[in-house]
Formats: sequence, C-alpha cells, structure tokens
Amino acid sequence: MAVDWNSAEGCRALDPADMLGRLLEFPAQFRPAYDAGRRLSLPAGYKHSRQVVVAGMGGSAIAGDYVAALLRDRCRVPVFVWRDYGLPAFAGPDTLVVASSYSGNTEETLSAFDRARRAGARIIALTTGGELGRRAEAAGYPVFKIDYQAPPRAALAYSLFPLLGILTALEVAPDLTAEVDEAGAVAAGLLETVRPERPEGSNPAKALARAAHGRVVVVYGGGSLEPVARRWKTQVNENSKGWAFFEALPELNHNAVVGFTYPPAARDTVLVIGLGSPGEAAELDARLEVTAELLRQAGHEPRILAARGNSRLARMMHLTVLGDWFSYYLALLNGVDPTPVPPIDFLKAELARRREGPSPA
Amino acid sequence: MAVDWNSAEGCRALDPADMLGRLLEFPAQFRPAYDAGRRLSLPAGYKHSRQVVVAGMGGSAIAGDYVAALLRDRCRVPVFVWRDYGLPAFAGPDTLVVASSYSGNTEETLSAFDRARRAGARIIALTTGGELGRRAEAAGYPVFKIDYQAPPRAALAYSLFPLLGILTALEVAPDLTAEVDEAGAVAAGLLETVRPERPEGSNPAKALARAAHGRVVVVYGGGSLEPVARRWKTQVNENSKGWAFFEALPELNHNAVVGFTYPPAARDTVLVIGLGSPGEAAELDARLEVTAELLRQAGHEPRILAARGNSRLARMMHLTVLGDWFSYYLALLNGVDPTPVPPIDFLKAELARRREGPSPA
Repeated sequence: MAVDWNSAEGCRALDPADMLGRLLEFPAQFRPAYDAGRRLSLPAGYKHSRQVVVAGMGGSAIAGDYVAALLRDRCRVPVFVWRDYGLPAFAGPDTLVVASSYSGNTEETLSAFDRARRAGARIIALTTGGELGRRAEAAGYPVFKIDYQAPPRAALAYSLFPLLGILTALEVAPDLTAEVDEAGAVAAGLLETVRPERPEGSNPAKALARAAHGRVVVVYGGGSLEPVARRWKTQVNENSKGWAFFEALPELNHNAVVGFTYPPAARDTVLVIGLGSPGEAAELDARLEVTAELLRQAGHEPRILAARGNSRLARMMHLTVLGDWFSYYLALLNGVDPTPVPPIDFLKAELARRREGPSPA
Repeated sequence: MAVDWNSAEGCRALDPADMLGRLLEFPAQFRPAYDAGRRLSLPAGYKHSRQVVVAGMGGSAIAGDYVAALLRDRCRVPVFVWRDYGLPAFAGPDTLVVASSYSGNTEETLSAFDRARRAGARIIALTTGGELGRRAEAAGYPVFKIDYQAPPRAALAYSLFPLLGILTALEVAPDLTAEVDEAGAVAAGLLETVRPERPEGSNPAKALARAAHGRVVVVYGGGSLEPVARRWKTQVNENSKGWAFFEALPELNHNAVVGFTYPPAARDTVLVIGLGSPGEAAELDARLEVTAELLRQAGHEPRILAARGNSRLARMMHLTVLGDWFSYYLALLNGVDPTPVPPIDFLKAELARRREGPSPA
C-alpha cells in the first residue's frame, strides 16, 4: 500500500479531493435532507399518482431502488426505477416522474424529462442545477435544488432522503422521521469503528478490504438489501476502480449457486460478500446461510455481514456506510485516488465526438 | 475436453438427459405456445388491469423480463417482475398476477399466489401442475397447463410465449403473430450454424465457448437485450456450472466502466461478451462500442455480438438461442453434464430440514 491508512493525513495522500471528508459527513445529512424534501412546494394535483417513476442513472437511480425496497410492503403506489433514455409507454398524466440527476446534465435523464413533458406527467426535478434545472424551472416544474458539492455517488444522502421526504409529503410514504433519525444514529455510530484511526484488527471496513484486495468482488443481498448490494458493487467500481458484481436473494438460489465450480481459478480471484439482515425475513436468513455453505463446499470463503439497527432503513444505511468505507480502503490498497473516474470522462467525450461526426480536416 | 463435440452422439456422452434435444426443439415451440396462450379461457373481468405482475423465479421470472422489455415502448400497462416471497403492497383487485412456476412447487411463487388471493387480485397460473396447479384449480383461477417435459430453463418457450399470448388476448399486448413467426424462423435458421455438426471454425457458439473456457463470463446488454444478457448469465450458471454475471447498458457506463483496472489478474480470468442490436437504438450502439474500447484500453478482449432479425422479438430470440448453445458447449469444455443442478437440490433439502427443525435423537 502506498499510504498509511491509519490516519486521516495518511489517507489524504492518495485522496487529495477528500472523499474521506464526504464519508465522514454522510450520516449527519439524512435528517436535514429528509426534512428539506418534505418542505418542497408541490402542486396539489401531484397527490394520488398512479405510479411513481424515478428516472436517473448511477447514484441517482439507486436512490429509487432504496425507496422501492424500503416501501415495498407498505406503499400502495408502484415505484419504478427507469435507467434509460425516454420512459416506458405507460407513463402518462397520472404518473409522477422524479427526474434525478446530480449534475443536471445526464443525457438519459434529460431524455426522460423531455418524454415526461410530452406525456403530460407530473414532474419533479432533483438536481444541483445544470440543464435539467434550467429546463424544469423554465417549464414551471418543482425543482429540489441539491446544495452539496461532491462526486454524485458521495451525494447519496441528497438523492435518497429528499425523495423520501417528497413521497412522505405526497402521502405515498408514511412519516419516516423516526426511521431516518435511527438510520442517522446507527450510521454515525458505525463511523467510530470504520474511521482511519481504527486499525485493521478492529476495523471491519479495513479487514474486508484486505480480504477483497486482488479479487473480483461479488455482493449478495436480498429484499431491502438488494439495492445495498448494488451500492457496494458500484462503489467498488468507482472508488476502488475494481471489478464487482451483485446478485439478489432469493433469485440467485435458482441459478448462481450452480455456478460456483468453474473456472477453478475463481477460488483465488473471487470474493463473495453476503449482506444479511438477521430477523427481518427468516427465509432470506436461511437462504443466505445455505448459500454460504455451498460456497464453502466449492472452496470459497464468503464473508457474511449482519446489518444492525431496529428499523429497515437503519439496517440499509448501516451496511451502506460499511460498504462505502470498504470501497474507500480498497482504493487505498489498490493505490488509487478514489475520486476521479477517467473512463466516464472518456466515454462522455467520445459519445459527444461521435454525435458531432468527424471534424473537418 | 472429455467428448467429441462435433457429433450429436459425441455430445450425448456427457449429456445423457439430452439437453441437446431440448435445444434443437426450442425454435419450433414459439408459435404453438403463443397461440395456446391466446386461446386460454379467461374471465372478462381480467381486461383493463392496472398493472401486470409476473411472479416467479429463475426461468419463469425471466419470461416476465422479456415481456417487459419487448413491450416497454408500446404497452400502456406497467409490467412488473416479482422475484420474491409475497407481493408488493400495491397489488390489489385491479392487478393481474401471473404466478409462473414450471414445477408448480416453487415456494416463493406459492407464497406470491397466496398473497395475490388475499389481495383479491386477478390471478392466472402458468405451470405443469404441482401445488400451484392444485391451488389455482381448486380456487377456480385459470391455469395455463405446460405440457412439456424438460428442466425449467429449457422450457423457456413455455414460460414466455403463452404469457405473450395471454397479454395479447387481454389487449395489453398487440397481436404479435408476425414477430413470433419471424423469431421462430430466425432461431431455426441459427440452429444450422450452431449444431454439433458445425465445427468450431464455423460455429460461433463453439468459438465463443472456447474463448470463455477458464474464465468468469460477464455479459452486457441494453434495452431489449438486458433480459437476454441475464439469460446468458443464468445459462452459464446452470448448464456450464460456471461463474457469470450480467450488466445493463446504459447503466454500466455510470459505474462498471470505471472498474476495469483491478485486480490486474481479471485480464486473464474475465471474458466480457457484449450483446448488440445494431440499428435498434443509436445511443446503445455507440455506448457498446465505446465500452468495448475502454475494455481494450484496460487489456481485455471483449467479444461483441450482433443480434439478427427485423423485429425486436426476433433479435432477442436470436441471441437467446446463441447463448443457450454457447452455455451448452461451455459445459462440454468444462467436462460436465449440462442438465443436473445438485446445488439447487441440496438447497431445497437443507431449507426443508431447517424448517422442520432438528429431528429427534
């Protein structure tokens, strides 16, 4: 490792943009962001929507996954997450479309916004500004203005909690204040055991990063933890610059478990991390345990983690924080700065170049 | 390799249950299965549902993904796929729930069926029989009876095309006869180039299996090809007994592309296969090309495939057939029988044992 990860100063040698600071700020943002969402001024006609569609990509879209998973057994309105250009054909005047883009310049989300306008949908924009902010304001739609400078993935509190607040205000979601507060407290409590000053022996995020170093990371989670497993995967991709995948329980019991044998080299190159929420759903607990047993039979050493907290939201955020720190330390072990994402910059430039065609000689 | 894969007899040495026969029969099943779905007798009250929920797991659930992807820009009714116990809270009397389980004994699907009954939903069962068939018949719900003996994943034509036929009958989907016929013709045509008699040099399924042998398989697909990428992944898991994952475009451009660097060993242990549908969506074409370029910059050699056919359904089924044969030949290269799935048998037995508790001493 290129740095001393046992002090903030040591970490910042590889982290000049201070992702560490973003990780430390995160838990304190939950409640203010939720309250701000509840206060957003919305047209009365936005209540009683037939469906909610969260249109966004990456760190914006995953907030929709968290909301859908959190509310799936207590919300009478279907919540869809749409990660693409345009919108599904069912979106119409009775659909609430939340167009969510941190920068406001995500081309898929702008396309979704334009389609939502043409469909006459009820639209809310969630953004720091950019083109989405301009278009939404010009057309008179409500805009939740994110006022936080960070890479989009580090602004998860501002894609997730305002969305929850908005849905509470629209009576799609119940009052979640107590859950949000517990989630903030649990996440803040976890900070004490994952911060740089805690050495590897008593720091679960560092220990897990050590186990994952040199391996492809595969994260399993079911029910409310499926989007959390996805978050781990994307954080390893973006922060650690590493290969990672996620799979959902119970679905993975119907296919992935058959595939633990080949190639044999996977025993040395894949690490499976299982996210559990003991007591929340007995079937998922049992399935995670038996899946771990199957992995061990195939020569793997899976790491099984247990979410802490009383409420579902607290458990989700507990493991979210652990995953964020895990991906941060894995970046340091890989010797890379967690903040820049050069392939995404290349991709945007290359797509723009192709759209404009060859430049004149 | 343990067998001569250039003849059907050679293949069957490792394939005593004749998965080969199932692969050869597949294309001829599309149209009859679609027509049978259209003929299912349904209560008049099943029309004008607010949502369609396809409840199932594995090879049953993926039929719902295919339907949702196929119809997403021409269907005014949202189609949800539910891979879990129970049902989302929004399911009610105006929801059409298709409970789909080949065996009829999938515990998640039985749980969904029971929940749908309690919610007063409109229910259709799609099954060979089993407990689901019994419960649905006893309660007077329509049952589409699958009359085909095969491992569930090899019965995809019977989870997918009857579902399409049912949705056509309910006017959720348009008349798809022409697309179904073209899909059958394209799939049958592809058989000629992937069957055992075609040697590796002129057989794309064998050539791809050779490239994937010894590697973790990662499949990318966007839009209508996202469920096809998932199908490839599950077929590698179950037929080839190998590690495999899928990711969706354009979402993977927002995270996965940053993760091509670590661990460096992934260059020798991961193969990325990109599924393209040239001309269907210009943005996805461009994104797949630039993604391949990023992989090459990171030292990978991705394989980019192009779907053939005029209609979307034909293109989906073209690549589905190619993936099925690819996974079959990869099983032979791995020296394993493609049909048995011992980990799933172990899992079912172990879950049953835990539910019953320790046996008396």
